[in-house]
Amino acid sequence: MTYAVGMRLNRGLVFMSDTRTNAGVDNVSTFNKMFNWTVEGDRSITILAAGNLATTQSTISLLEERTKVPEERSPSILEAPTMFQIAQLVATTLNDVIEEHARSGQQADSAFHATLILGGQIRGGPSRLFLIYPEGNFIEAGDDTPFFQIGETKYGRPILVRAYDPEMSFPETVKLLLVSFDSTIKANLSVGAPLDLLLYDEDSFESGTRSRFETDDQYFRIISEGWGDALKSALSKLPEYSS
Amino acid sequence: MTYAVGMRLNRGLVFMSDTRTNAGVDNVSTFNKMFNWTVEGDRSITILAAGNLATTQSTISLLEERTKVPEERSPSILEAPTMFQIAQLVATTLNDVIEEHARSGQQADSAFHATLILGGQIRGGPSRLFLIYPEGNFIEAGDDTPFFQIGETKYGRPILVRAYDPEMSFPETVKLLLVSFDSTIKANLSVGAPLDLLLYDEDSFESGTRSRFETDDQYFRIISEGWGDALKSALSKLPEYSS
Repeated sequence: MTYAVGMRLNRGLVFMSDTRTNAGVDNVSTFNKMFNWTVEGDRSITILAAGNLATTQSTISLLEERTKVPEERSPSILEAPTMFQIAQLVATTLNDVIEEHARSGQQADSAFHATLILGGQIRGGPSRLFLIYPEGNFIEAGDDTPFFQIGETKYGRPILVRAYDPEMSFPETVKLLLVSFDSTIKANLSVGAPLDLLLYDEDSFESGTRSRFETDDQYFRIISEGWGDALKSALSKLPEYSS
Repeated sequence: MTYAVGMRLNRGLVFMSDTRTNAGVDNVSTFNKMFNWTVEGDRSITILAAGNLATTQSTISLLEERTKVPEERSPSILEAPTMFQIAQLVATTLNDVIEEHARSGQQADSAFHATLILGGQIRGGPSRLFLIYPEGNFIEAGDDTPFFQIGETKYGRPILVRAYDPEMSFPETVKLLLVSFDSTIKANLSVGAPLDLLLYDEDSFESGTRSRFETDDQYFRIISEGWGDALKSALSKLPEYSS
């Protein structure tokens, strides 16, 4: 499985993803699921990937190739004039990869599926965030749904729904996301650290601040250990039930 | 869907279940999913049901019939000498119903499946709690896994994992369960109030205290509204992230 979140804030975009992939519980590996393309001063594009690893790697590689030889295939991620066109490009590429794998194999079902979160900003427009489905279509985040989750989304969702605020600072957002990821990691073996983080400042048109939380990262451990006590204390402050 | 929890505490057993059933989002009904059989002074047995409604109703009816005409079929729930034998009886009945439905229909897959939580106490033994699978086998709660969830279990799990304590009082447990149910209801349309609650005092051998939380129940609303603020406040007390 995977757990990844892309979030729209007034300050910009925040992305977090885990790095665990598994084919059965006895075949566990660490793979990067966060990809960024930046043209300084012009655009910063980030993709988070969940689903079949062969599909997502192939999709990213195809996008990469188009990026590296822009004169051959265009418009590439680095050239498309709007985020919407990039979303179309990524969605089409993803769907092509899935259909190709499905055709060549015995299994034509959802085994090759993958879901992507695409976010970024191109000079001349605001930052935008998309959720791209394996079918090749996509939806965009708005004020009512300001963040997307992919992969194992359920355990970490309640805290996001309750505590998300578009006015949050980046440090507050990182704290919230670490709590959401920690709840998921504690419940599902197929989601695991290290966790990748990318903070994109609105209108910066730079790649943003990227960092990684290892399993033994001190701040991650403080959050993970402190959250249990914080929850118990929050619960104890709610009024008592009397039947 | 459904959400139901059975919990073992030092003080006794606590059960909570929602009442929503649905066949598509346009066919939503309210059904009781909590069933209790009591012989005052001898035993109290409770079952929570999740899954195909026809299967669970049929299973409960069969157990009921055996209960009501004990001389015809024995041992019934009211007669079996141990909780383990009752678990066997319930598991066998459940599996029989599923197999019968699967044989008579076109679909032989998991469409008729159901999962049950069985808990109770018979004089001469401690209270015991079981999770019964559609395959007709079951597991028992122990100190390491002191509660079972069935149905839509993921949203409400993190708070249970973090805050469960076998020493909890019944009012504390009700508060914890309401938070867990509220997180689930907020995330999944197929889980909904009213919520049924049963509190069984260890060694009481009575049916226990049964009550129902309607959607507009004052205490449930206080918990639901207060929990968002309590979470935000808990989050704000954790140390700030600095990259």
